[in-house]
Amino acid sequence: MSIQPIRVTVWGENAHEKTSETVRAVYPDGMHTVIAAGIREYLGDGAVVRTATLEQDEHGLTDEVLGSTDVLTWWGHMAHGKVEDAVVDKVYQRVLNGMGLIVLHSGHFSKIFRKLMGTSCALRWREDPNERELVWNVRPGHPITKGIGPVIVVPHQEMYGEYFDIPQPDEQIFISSFTGGEVFRSGCCFTRGQGRIFYFSPGHETFPVYYQTEIKQVIANAVGWAYRDPASSPVFEITKAPNAPTGWFEKSGND
Amino acid sequence: MSIQPIRVTVWGENAHEKTSETVRAVYPDGMHTVIAAGIREYLGDGAVVRTATLEQDEHGLTDEVLGSTDVLTWWGHMAHGKVEDAVVDKVYQRVLNGMGLIVLHSGHFSKIFRKLMGTSCALRWREDPNERELVWNVRPGHPITKGIGPVIVVPHQEMYGEYFDIPQPDEQIFISSFTGGEVFRSGCCFTRGQGRIFYFSPGHETFPVYYQTEIKQVIANAVGWAYRDPASSPVFEITKAPNAPTGWFEKSGND
Amino acid sequence: MSIQPIRVTVWGENAHEKTSETVRAVYPDGMHTVIAAGIREYLGDGAVVRTATLEQDEHGLTDEVLGSTDVLTWWGHMAHGKVEDAVVDKVYQRVLNGMGLIVLHSGHFSKIFRKLMGTSCALRWREDPNERELVWNVRPGHPITKGIGPVIVVPHQEMYGEYFDIPQPDEQIFISSFTGGEVFRSGCCFTRGQGRIFYFSPGHETFPVYYQTEIKQVIANAVGWAYRDPASSPVFEITKAPNAPTGWFEKSGND
Amino acid sequence: MSIQPIRVTVWGENAHEKTSETVRAVYPDGMHTVIAAGIREYLGDGAVVRTATLEQDEHGLTDEVLGSTDVLTWWGHMAHGKVEDAVVDKVYQRVLNGMGLIVLHSGHFSKIFRKLMGTSCALRWREDPNERELVWNVRPGHPITKGIGPVIVVPHQEMYGEYFDIPQPDEQIFISSFTGGEVFRSGCCFTRGQGRIFYFSPGHETFPVYYQTEIKQVIANAVGWAYRDPASSPVFEITKAPNAPTGWFEKSGND
Repeated sequence: MSIQPIRVTVWGENAHEKTSETVRAVYPDGMHTVIAAGIREYLGDGAVVRTATLEQDEHGLTDEVLGSTDVLTWWGHMAHGKVEDAVVDKVYQRVLNGMGLIVLHSGHFSKIFRKLMGTSCALRWREDPNERELVWNVRPGHPITKGIGPVIVVPHQEMYGEYFDIPQPDEQIFISSFTGGEVFRSGCCFTRGQGRIFYFSPGHETFPVYYQTEIKQVIANAVGWAYRDPASSPVFEITKAPNAPTGWFEKSGND
Repeated sequence: MSIQPIRVTVWGENAHEKTSETVRAVYPDGMHTVIAAGIREYLGDGAVVRTATLEQDEHGLTDEVLGSTDVLTWWGHMAHGKVEDAVVDKVYQRVLNGMGLIVLHSGHFSKIFRKLMGTSCALRWREDPNERELVWNVRPGHPITKGIGPVIVVPHQEMYGEYFDIPQPDEQIFISSFTGGEVFRSGCCFTRGQGRIFYFSPGHETFPVYYQTEIKQVIANAVGWAYRDPASSPVFEITKAPNAPTGWFEKSGND
Repeated sequence: MSIQPIRVTVWGENAHEKTSETVRAVYPDGMHTVIAAGIREYLGDGAVVRTATLEQDEHGLTDEVLGSTDVLTWWGHMAHGKVEDAVVDKVYQRVLNGMGLIVLHSGHFSKIFRKLMGTSCALRWREDPNERELVWNVRPGHPITKGIGPVIVVPHQEMYGEYFDIPQPDEQIFISSFTGGEVFRSGCCFTRGQGRIFYFSPGHETFPVYYQTEIKQVIANAVGWAYRDPASSPVFEITKAPNAPTGWFEKSGND
Repeated sequence: MSIQPIRVTVWGENAHEKTSETVRAVYPDGMHTVIAAGIREYLGDGAVVRTATLEQDEHGLTDEVLGSTDVLTWWGHMAHGKVEDAVVDKVYQRVLNGMGLIVLHSGHFSKIFRKLMGTSCALRWREDPNERELVWNVRPGHPITKGIGPVIVVPHQEMYGEYFDIPQPDEQIFISSFTGGEVFRSGCCFTRGQGRIFYFSPGHETFPVYYQTEIKQVIANAVGWAYRDPASSPVFEITKAPNAPTGWFEKSGND
């Protein structure tokens, strides 16, 4: 019912793309441009999408950019350690205050995801061109599975397997199996503070997963789910610990 | 992003209103009309709202009505036992197949809520005109608390207290306290099949709770949350247990 | 720290065993005897285990038996419809009042499990001798996975696949994959009232799954987890809805 | 069924006790000694309990102490900032690898709790000698509420109120109300890695809460719940992200 478009920032590490011919062949303009295009395709006028990358000042996530971002998507891998802690802390505060966050694939080991989860976020993995991922929909009817059938077949994908060291998700949306027999909790919803977080594992730098129709739709659905209308929700300044005199709420219904 | 209005049916037992002067003084045209008006007020063109009551044929919940209802709200109390099992079974099937359900106040003891919960749904209670309910928002940022501050003050309300015999909610949205010291899980989200269920306890037949601004907003928010766009989601016929030959999903991505 | 042995009743439909040579070859004295023996093997003096079957009076679940059962295990399949509603209602009340319940394999479609879940409990399935089940441990450290490594390999097993129509489990313990690529939430914890419920899917009538070491250990672990010491816990008569005069709890800390 | 006693370490900041006459009057030998005595009283031979405090080398949490601790309890307040990050990191690793953690009262703002939660853990508060806390049992039948009735009355207690910025608990055990009308999620279970965490808010430095019978029992119950038998559970080295060649699990059922 909102008529404001969702302001989305697609963050990409953009490192493999520069160092690997193989990756460049699949994503010549970077993975972030393909992810951004997929969101635009599915949300249309409902979203305004821009990108930001590691090599930019403050990794492209200045106060101004973060302050005008409703939902941030995150893909990183080889350069997790190069993301500055000060930027991570700002993203963290924005999530607690209501910004949505979509963490993709190898982003499971990013500083921001581990900080929000409180666990190691470790998993098993295997790169093998013969691994097919079957992404099973275990929450039909959920906004994130809108338009998605019982299973998404990803023809080639890196294997991610359990045990995946995350807190139990608030909602389990997808569970994957791989040719080798492993399973993985591949679509997981979390809430931290006023922010919603969706982890979605399909999408590797050497496979064209982010061009696949269903994958684009899931990411666009997740953006819609994670969105919190800043105009209509009172801002709880949740990181303060306010002293509350008796009857404080009589005078004001708000914080 | 949907442009289809949500089709809401407000179900009311409409029994206290006929037998009690006190209730009639507060809700002269029945509680269902006030609940319906509140949803219209907050959702505007985003919803088409009609009502149905116990005394109608099939309690107003014919196949045609249920088939064209996206979200059903339920208020009942003294006549839970008069709701026919055949109607309850139809509502139950519709919820599993994706219809949203908002259960209000004494609806905790309705046949449909107990059937969906799998528990007794018992609680403690006390009618006392001096009981004030404080409805605390423990999920700021959630769609159901859009526009709602830290606490809703309901000046007069029947006391509902723990232990409330429900399964642990998927999401806990509101927790109430009462003047006498009791607490109550007063806003609870559940999923059953493809349907979303919200239980919301404020709202008694002898108090004008359903005229209160914040209460109307919460119910309207819950309608939006429970809505599942029937056009964009594949229907899983989830109550069948299909035999699945090897590779069935190769031919078809759907059920 | 309890020194009282856990009183376990293993309920078996015992129907396939009578009608099928194939089943009798695997379980000549009935599946229930093998399940009971496995619990005795792992819990030793910590449990007193008896069995009950469909053909007995009241299906072997008299008031006296249920009243002296701390944890009940349930295996049924072809005769779900023959279980009398009156017995189901008694088991249901006992679970709400604190009896543990372990539901095995095809018990997913039993009356008692569906009544406690509030959903259809439907799933996909395939009988194929070439299906291997890999049961992945997604909750290391949980009492139910005591002694269990990352994966249990069940060499031959009926395929059970998603979508499995259950409420989201309180805790997800195991997730399985099958040779054909399906996944299944094969170990799930629920609470209903004061009773704990564990659903565990491995174990088919034509495969010797209940003789397998890890499967026996998981079932024994689950019995320990579901146990609630009746001597040390106050009984909440949770299915009543008591009127609670102001200050009722001042006089008594209990129900 | 374990015969090994649980090895408990009670950690206390022990700072208020040194600087405030008021606190010393209530807890002359430190709060940690009273908490430790309560656990010994309820667990008897089932536990070996020692204490550790901030002023000791490595805050009393050397590798040897942590390596031989099954469950750690944590009370801190005015000196959270003096706890060294290196110690916090070691405690964090031990929790992920299976050590239980009981966080008490103002420990909500400790470094270790915030690191494990991934949120600010902020709350509202008020010190007022006239505040009574009613701690309601919303999970009868759970091991942590063994022996506990519907409500624990704490005659004098600091008010802690919502919004409490934590992730949704895996299990909600207690919810409190205060004289001033606030509510608080006062007993919350979490899992991080293989470790179980229980947050329990009653217990302030100027009130004799840790001498109260029911409070001692809840803490002792929580120790039993958080315990994970190190002899019987395989250690998953969960913070590594192992490469897993195809079929790795065929040779070994373990990590």
